[in-house]
Amino acid sequence: MKYNIGIDLGGTNINVGVVDSNYNIVGRGALKTNLPRPEDEIASDIVAATVLACDDAGITIDDVSSIGIGTPGSANRDSGIVIYSSNLGFDNTDLRGLLSSRFEQISKTSKKIFVENDANAAAYGEMIAGAAKDYDNVVVVTLGTGVGGGIIIDGKIYSGFNYYGAELGHNVIEYDGRPCPCGRNGCLESYASATALIKSTKEAMLNNKESKLWEICDNIDNVNGKTAFDAMRLGDAAGTQVVDEYINYLGCGLVNIINTFQPQMLLIGGGVCKEGDYLTKPLEAIISREGYKVSPDMATKLGIAKLGNDAGIIGAAFLYQMSE
Amino acid sequence: MKYNIGIDLGGTNINVGVVDSNYNIVGRGALKTNLPRPEDEIASDIVAATVLACDDAGITIDDVSSIGIGTPGSANRDSGIVIYSSNLGFDNTDLRGLLSSRFEQISKTSKKIFVENDANAAAYGEMIAGAAKDYDNVVVVTLGTGVGGGIIIDGKIYSGFNYYGAELGHNVIEYDGRPCPCGRNGCLESYASATALIKSTKEAMLNNKESKLWEICDNIDNVNGKTAFDAMRLGDAAGTQVVDEYINYLGCGLVNIINTFQPQMLLIGGGVCKEGDYLTKPLEAIISREGYKVSPDMATKLGIAKLGNDAGIIGAAFLYQMSE
Repeated sequence: MKYNIGIDLGGTNINVGVVDSNYNIVGRGALKTNLPRPEDEIASDIVAATVLACDDAGITIDDVSSIGIGTPGSANRDSGIVIYSSNLGFDNTDLRGLLSSRFEQISKTSKKIFVENDANAAAYGEMIAGAAKDYDNVVVVTLGTGVGGGIIIDGKIYSGFNYYGAELGHNVIEYDGRPCPCGRNGCLESYASATALIKSTKEAMLNNKESKLWEICDNIDNVNGKTAFDAMRLGDAAGTQVVDEYINYLGCGLVNIINTFQPQMLLIGGGVCKEGDYLTKPLEAIISREGYKVSPDMATKLGIAKLGNDAGIIGAAFLYQMSE
Repeated sequence: MKYNIGIDLGGTNINVGVVDSNYNIVGRGALKTNLPRPEDEIASDIVAATVLACDDAGITIDDVSSIGIGTPGSANRDSGIVIYSSNLGFDNTDLRGLLSSRFEQISKTSKKIFVENDANAAAYGEMIAGAAKDYDNVVVVTLGTGVGGGIIIDGKIYSGFNYYGAELGHNVIEYDGRPCPCGRNGCLESYASATALIKSTKEAMLNNKESKLWEICDNIDNVNGKTAFDAMRLGDAAGTQVVDEYINYLGCGLVNIINTFQPQMLLIGGGVCKEGDYLTKPLEAIISREGYKVSPDMATKLGIAKLGNDAGIIGAAFLYQMSE
C-alpha cells in the first residue's frame, strides 16, 4: 500500500494524517501550534506530529511517498514558500525548506513536499474524495468565522498568478455596505459568515424582546449559528427574518460565483451547513431563479462539503497529483 | 505564409478577416447579418464573406489552415454547437456543421472549424496579440451596451463546464439594487455599462439645469459615454459626481474580479476606455486601496484593450491553438 502524509497547519493545532490510496486516514498525529513562536519550532513540531501519525498508522516515514501541507495565508506552490500569513507570523517563510531538512534527518530517501493554502487544500480534498469527487470543475465556499473560497479548474487548484486569488468572501455584494476587516465595505463575508449570522441573530434579539430567540438562548452570549434556524422552526418571526436575510445574501453571492465559473459543483461547507435542507432548498430556489443556465441537466449542482476538517488533510496528502 | 480565418458574427454584421501568423489582418470581407433569417442563409453568407476576405488578401480558401468563429450566445467549443443565442435565433444550432458542409464544397481539403462565444474570442485575441500578449492569465471586461467578460486561464478560454460562465457583468455588486435585464437586481452591468453611464448622465442633467452638461450637450438625446467626462474636465459638479459614481462602482466590480482571479492582467475595453487616464488612474487607486495583493510587483496590472473590433477576428483565427 502506498501512503501519503497530509498536514493541516492551523492557528491552534497541527493535525497530521497518514492517508492511504483509497483516501482513508489510517493514522493521526496532532500537536498544538502554540503561537506565537519561531518558524523553526513550528516546523520541528510539524515533523514530530508526522512521526506520531506514522506511529499511529503502524508505518515509518520511509513508507510515505509524498508529504503535503495546507497552511493559512498565501503559499507559492511552486517554490514551497509561504508568502505571508499574519496568523502564523510567516513572511516569505521557506516552509518546504524547513520541513525538507528535518525530514531528511529521519528518512532514508528525500521526500517531495507540497505546500498549499489551507482552504485550497480542503477544496482539493472535497474534489478528489468528498462531495465533489465525480467532478473536476468545483468551487467550495466555507462559511465559518470568515467566508473562504477554493477554486478547482480542470482538476487543479486555481489561485491566480500570485497565489492570492479565490478570496470569494471578499467580493462586495452590497456596495458601501457593512464594513469588513479586509478594508472593503459590503463583502460577502460580512453577510454570509457564521460570524455575521450570529451578529444578526443578536441584533434581532435586542430588537425583539418577545422573540422565541430568547427561549432558545436565554443568554445572548450563547447565540450560535443554529439559534436563528431553531427559532424559525418554532415559527418565530424574528428568527425567520434573520434566516431569510442570511440566505438571501448568501444566495446572491453563490449566484455570482455560478455566473462567473459555472462549475459542475458548488459546495458549501462550515457548521451552518448542518441545517441541511433548511439552508439548501431556499438557496437552490434563488440559484434557479437568478443564475444563468442552459438547461436543468447542464446547471451547476449545489452540494454540502462532507469531509469536514479532514478535507484539508486528505487534499494536502494528494497535492502531488497536481504536479504529475 | 500560413493563414487563418477569423469570423466575428454579430447581430448587424458578419466581419471576416484573413489573419497571417504575425496576427495581422491581411484581407477583409463583410456582409450584413440581416436578422431575422434562417440559420442556413446566415451560414451561406458567412462563407460568402470569407470568400470576399480571401479575395481581398489575394489568397484562396486552400491557403487557409483553420477557420474560427466568434458568435453571440453560448457556444460548445467541443461540439461546435451554439447552444442558444436569442440575438441570432440560434437554438442548438450546429454552426460547425453548417459551415463545414459549405466550406467542403469550395475547398480541396476539409478545414478545421472552431466555434466560440464572441466575447471569449475577443478576450483570446487580446491575450495572443493585444494588450495582454505577454500574459496567459487574463480577464477582460468590456464596457458597452452591457458589461461582457472573458476569462483566460493558463492561455485558454475558461467559461465553465457548460460554456455559460464568465458572465462578469451579471455579478451583483449592490444587493437589491438597480434592476438588470437578466432578472437580477444590482448587477455590475447596471452600474458600469456605457448604457448605465449615459442613463446617469441624463438623470444628472434633469436634476441640474445649470450644469455644464447642458452646454456640452444641448439636447439630452445626444448624451453619450463621453459627456459626463467632458463636463468633469470643465469643473462641473454634476458631471464630476456622475463620473465619480461610475468609477467607484466599476472599481468595486474590478476589485471583485482581482480578489477572485488575481490575473496577471485585467483589461477593460469599450468606448468609455477612450477616456484613458481619466478612467484608469482613479480605478488604479481603488484597486490599490481595496484589492488583495502580495507586493506591488506581484499585483494585477490594469490595462486597456487595444485591438477594438479586431480582437474577435484575431482571437477566432487562432482558436485552433487551444486544441493543440
